Amino acid sequence: MIITNAVVAPLYLGPVERALALAGAATTPILVEDGEQAKDWRTLERVFDQLLAARCGRDTVIVALGGGVIGDLAGFAAAVYQRGVPFIQVPTTLLAQVDSSVGGKTAINHPRGKNMVGAFHQPLAVIADIATLDSLPPRELRAGLAEVIKHALILDRAFADWLDENLAALLAREHAAVAYAVRRSCELKARVVAEDERETGLRAILNFGHTFGHAFEAGVGYGQWLHGEAVSAGMVMAAELSVRAGLLARADAARVRALLQRAGLPVVGPALPPERVLELMQVDKKAAGGRLRFVLLRQVGSAVVRGDIEERLVRDTIVSCNAMPVVASQ
Amino acid sequence: MIITNAVVAPLYLGPVERALALAGAATTPILVEDGEQAKDWRTLERVFDQLLAARCGRDTVIVALGGGVIGDLAGFAAAVYQRGVPFIQVPTTLLAQVDSSVGGKTAINHPRGKNMVGAFHQPLAVIADIATLDSLPPRELRAGLAEVIKHALILDRAFADWLDENLAALLAREHAAVAYAVRRSCELKARVVAEDERETGLRAILNFGHTFGHAFEAGVGYGQWLHGEAVSAGMVMAAELSVRAGLLARADAARVRALLQRAGLPVVGPALPPERVLELMQVDKKAAGGRLRFVLLRQVGSAVVRGDIEERLVRDTIVSCNAMPVVASQ
Repeated sequence: MIITNAVVAPLYLGPVERALALAGAATTPILVEDGEQAKDWRTLERVFDQLLAARCGRDTVIVALGGGVIGDLAGFAAAVYQRGVPFIQVPTTLLAQVDSSVGGKTAINHPRGKNMVGAFHQPLAVIADIATLDSLPPRELRAGLAEVIKHALILDRAFADWLDENLAALLAREHAAVAYAVRRSCELKARVVAEDERETGLRAILNFGHTFGHAFEAGVGYGQWLHGEAVSAGMVMAAELSVRAGLLARADAARVRALLQRAGLPVVGPALPPERVLELMQVDKKAAGGRLRFVLLRQVGSAVVRGDIEERLVRDTIVSCNAMPVVASQ
Repeated sequence: MIITNAVVAPLYLGPVERALALAGAATTPILVEDGEQAKDWRTLERVFDQLLAARCGRDTVIVALGGGVIGDLAGFAAAVYQRGVPFIQVPTTLLAQVDSSVGGKTAINHPRGKNMVGAFHQPLAVIADIATLDSLPPRELRAGLAEVIKHALILDRAFADWLDENLAALLAREHAAVAYAVRRSCELKARVVAEDERETGLRAILNFGHTFGHAFEAGVGYGQWLHGEAVSAGMVMAAELSVRAGLLARADAARVRALLQRAGLPVVGPALPPERVLELMQVDKKAAGGRLRFVLLRQVGSAVVRGDIEERLVRDTIVSCNAMPVVASQ
């Protein structure tokens, strides 16, 4: 059963169906709506209706063909249909190829919060064909690069150096450069997930830039900023906080900002009152058992999770990053 | 968060809340409807609404206080709320104490089939207080005994002998006898689940009587026969099929029937045309990858799964068991 949507299907459903037919597999497509609204109860129930109407048993394999929304929805459907069937991720956006398709996190949204209902369910395989990125809108390509840059910043200084040198080639979608960036990102994320699948420790570093970023996304209304855009501004802010906490050299924070800016990504948060940003961050605080935790940088390529950052430092950081560029904030 | 219903709450919610308060835990009850209809999407979504309204994070523990329906629903809610929170089973029916609370199977129903959406999610603990069985209606006590007897028939001849001798004490709810039966049942089931949690092999023997039983439940309409009643008639039929397949001595099949009859359980299926029963069994056939599989007895205390039983034998068995008592069918 191939779960996809009306945007992806005209481009890639045919080739996937033909490839699977050659391999002797009978396939049936299930089309859901495009966009984040597909990650809801109603869509999920319709997916189950169609799986049951097609008399799918536990030997059925679900293929998620599309971006992160399709992967999250189809992955969660696979996690709970008849208590779990295998699934394969075929991500067609850069964000999905370098981030959401790897690691087994699946979920749908609830009116009270994103990804509130879900499961850890590892895919049988992730098949990332970088030729699918040729059809990606430039804005989505850049948003995907934010997570590539994130993996370098928290885990791999050499990869950050490579990104500095090859950013133009990535933006021009040169296949060799894109293939390397996708592969390296997946390797880095997979290494973290293999050590801590259920996010009880190390995996939290993948949330670099996300504590601020989630607040930005929620504050401007979901769908206004792309996830990668919010994470980009969030990473600039987290780097600034790292400097203020005495962990990171100011030159390194400036380098983080410059790399994201060259990638065409936002380096300043949306125009929200600082108090509102702090309030929106309380959701993450509650999820972490009452403490507001931040992923901070010690240097480019090395991150640390800290639960003891004074709120005054956080407030000052929000004010400074919203009001003026980081490099000129002192 | 204690998930229970309006039948169980007046009897046991207070004591559970007081016990947890003594242990320093803050509790909030969530009440759902009584009966199988609570295992649906709408109820599950209301549970999530209440968990989110109470700002429950991943450190929340869900307590399932009630019978099998509560355990399945609350267990599935725990399996997927924020990708999984811990839960504790506090079963208050015999069926839940000896069967559904052990093994980690959780699920809700879909209009097209029972337990079609669910997860394997092991409870932190199962706390079975046999004093709660004093309030159980006699019909439900007998239905629970069907699964106790099932565990003995497939796994433990000595326990079957004990049941033969102590059936009167169990029906009189003598605490010592009930405690032993509950403990032995849980031990037997836990041993099977520990070897094969995801039901890829051995665990299938727990479905003894269920291939026929599921067809009976669906055929008469869910809620008309209790699950244990349908399984009882299904076990008589499976024992008869075991005889016809040359696996079991006729005297042993007669013993199975006599034990269930003494427990006040049905030993003849509902008045359904044999063709209808066969048709209803096709749902299980599809779920098993196209083959109709039966759990059969080789002797009392020893079961085997067989996928090669001729349909003619199955048909003859259905006809004979519906038309006349097993012991007189030849």
